[in-house]
Amino acid sequence: MLQTLPQHLQIAKVLHSELEKVEVIFSRQLESELPFVNELTAHVERYRGKMLRPTLLLLTAMAVEGDPCDGSSISARHRTIATVLEMIHMATLVHDDVLDEADFRRRGATVSSLRGNEMAVMLGDYLISNAFHLCSTEGESSLNELIGSVTNMVCEGELLQLSNRDNFDLDTRTYYEILERKTAVLVGACCRLGAVISNAPDAVVDAADRFGCGLGVAFQIQDDLLDLMEDRDTVGKSTGRDLDTGKLTLPVLLYLKKASLEERAEMLRILESRENAAMRRVLVDSGAVAAAYARAEDLVSQAKEELAAFPDSSARHLLQALADAVVTRRS
Amino acid sequence: MLQTLPQHLQIAKVLHSELEKVEVIFSRQLESELPFVNELTAHVERYRGKMLRPTLLLLTAMAVEGDPCDGSSISARHRTIATVLEMIHMATLVHDDVLDEADFRRRGATVSSLRGNEMAVMLGDYLISNAFHLCSTEGESSLNELIGSVTNMVCEGELLQLSNRDNFDLDTRTYYEILERKTAVLVGACCRLGAVISNAPDAVVDAADRFGCGLGVAFQIQDDLLDLMEDRDTVGKSTGRDLDTGKLTLPVLLYLKKASLEERAEMLRILESRENAAMRRVLVDSGAVAAAYARAEDLVSQAKEELAAFPDSSARHLLQALADAVVTRRS
Repeated sequence: MLQTLPQHLQIAKVLHSELEKVEVIFSRQLESELPFVNELTAHVERYRGKMLRPTLLLLTAMAVEGDPCDGSSISARHRTIATVLEMIHMATLVHDDVLDEADFRRRGATVSSLRGNEMAVMLGDYLISNAFHLCSTEGESSLNELIGSVTNMVCEGELLQLSNRDNFDLDTRTYYEILERKTAVLVGACCRLGAVISNAPDAVVDAADRFGCGLGVAFQIQDDLLDLMEDRDTVGKSTGRDLDTGKLTLPVLLYLKKASLEERAEMLRILESRENAAMRRVLVDSGAVAAAYARAEDLVSQAKEELAAFPDSSARHLLQALADAVVTRRS
Repeated sequence: MLQTLPQHLQIAKVLHSELEKVEVIFSRQLESELPFVNELTAHVERYRGKMLRPTLLLLTAMAVEGDPCDGSSISARHRTIATVLEMIHMATLVHDDVLDEADFRRRGATVSSLRGNEMAVMLGDYLISNAFHLCSTEGESSLNELIGSVTNMVCEGELLQLSNRDNFDLDTRTYYEILERKTAVLVGACCRLGAVISNAPDAVVDAADRFGCGLGVAFQIQDDLLDLMEDRDTVGKSTGRDLDTGKLTLPVLLYLKKASLEERAEMLRILESRENAAMRRVLVDSGAVAAAYARAEDLVSQAKEELAAFPDSSARHLLQALADAVVTRRS
C-alpha cells in the first residue's frame, strides 16, 4: 500500500479541485435576477454535506481511465452532470424536510422551519427545475432521459415509503424496494453516468451502476441506524425522526420477524407511543441492530466486488475506501 | 361569420380528438409498476380542467398552417409537448394546494387534504419528474432547455409571491412580475412551442409567445377576481384563499394606490383581520374591481393583436374566441 500513497494524494488533490468546480457550476446555475431568490438559495449551501454523489461520479470516471488518475479524463460534461445529480439530491433533502417535519439538518435550521413549508416546497421545485435545465444544456437528450427515469423512481420510492407509514406488517422485500428506489437508484446513476460519459464498455457501466446501488442501500441502512442510535449533537440533524414519522427501519423489521407474540405486542406498543429510548434498548439487546449493521456490511462487500470490472488504480482504491466509509461513518 | 361555421365545427372535432390523445399519453407516462402510485395518479385526473395549455399549443400549431385546419399539421411531437406542459401545470396545482392549504379545488378534495401535505409534495414531484422525462423522449434537448428555463421562472414567480405575502406595500410592477413568471411564461411557452414545432418563422413564434403571455396575465387577474367575488359553489374550488394566505391582488393594489390615509388604514385592518365580505364591498364600491377587470380586458385586446402575425383561418378565430373567454369565464 505504501508505494501508492503519493498517487492517492495526487487523486485527492484532483478530486478537491474538481469538486470546487462543481460548486461553482452549482452556484452559477441557481443565480437569479431576483435578489430574494439568491438569498434563499444561499441558504441551500448550508445543506451541502459530503458531496458523495459528485465524488462518486468523478471517481468512477477516473477509475475507468485508470492510473495515473491525474484528472485528464475529467471533462466539462462530467462536472455538469455531477452538479445536476448533487442538485437533485439537495432538492430531495429540502422536500424531505417538509416530509419529516425535521427541525434540524446538518446542524442548521431547515428551510421549512425557517420560512415555512410553502417556501421549502417551492425552493425544492426550483432546484429540481434547475437540475433538469442544467442537464439539458449538455445538448444530449439521452442524459435527460436517463436522469428523468431515475427521478421518477426516486419519487416512487418516497411515495411507497409514505404509503407504508405506520405499517407494522411491512415485509423486508418492500423495505428494500423503498430503499432501492428512494436512495440507491440515484447513487447507482452517479457511478453509471461517470462511466457512460467516459465511454466505458457496457459491462463496466453496468458494474458501476451495481456498485453504486449496493452502496446506496447500505448508506440508507446506516442512515437509519444513526437516526436510531445517535444523539443530535453527533449526527448534526434531527434524530429519532424515523420513529416520529412512523417509518419502519431494518432493525425493527428484523426484530419483528423473530419476535414472539408478546415481544411483538410490546414492540408495537413502543412504536405507537414513539418511545425511542425503549426501542433502542430492545433492538440493541436482541441483536437486531447488530444484524442490520451486518447486512449493511454485506452489501458493501458485494458492492466492492463489482469494482473488479475496473483496472487496478488509485481511483479504484479510493472507491473501495469510500464504500467502507459508508458503514463506518458516524454522521 | 356564418360561412365559417362548418370550418369551426371541423376544427373543434380535430381538437377534441387531439386532446383525447393527449390524455392517453398523459396516463401512459404516469403508469407505474407500483399499484399504489397508480391509485394516487388516478386521483390527479380529477384535477383536470379545461386543458387550456394543450389546447393553446394545438390551436397555435393549426393557426401556423392556416385553413383548412384539418389536423394534418399536428404531429406526435405536438401531442407529446402538449402533454408535458399540462403535466407541469398539474404539478403546480398539486404543489399550490400545499402552498395555499386549499381544501377544495375543482369541486373535489385535494391530494393534500386527503393524504397529507407530504404525499402532495411527492406526487407533485412525481409529475414534474415525469414531465421532464416525457420531454426528453423526444430526443431534442432544445425542448428540454426551453421548458426547463420556463419552469425555473415559474418557481421564481412562486417564490417572489411567497416573499411578498402580507406585504401591503407591494407595488404593481412587482405584482405583474409575479404574474408573468408564475403564470404567463408557461402559457406563453404553450403558444411558442406550438409554433416552434410547426417550424413557424421567428416573427410568428415571438408573436405567439406574446399572445400567450398576455393571455396568461389576464387569466391570472380574472382568477384573482373570481377568488374575490364568487362563492365556492360557482367556482368549484376554495374562494377567499388569496386573502387568507395574505396574497395581494390587483383590485387591492389599485384601491390602495388611490386611497386616502383613512381609507388605507381601514383596508389594512380588513386585510389583517381577513374579512373577505367587507373587502369585496369596498373594492366593488370604489370601482377597483371594475378597474382590474378593465385591465384584464385591455391585456386580452393587446394579445389578440398579436394574432395578426398568423394567416386568417378558423384556428386563428378560435384563438381569438379563447382569448375573449379568459375574461368572460365565471369559473
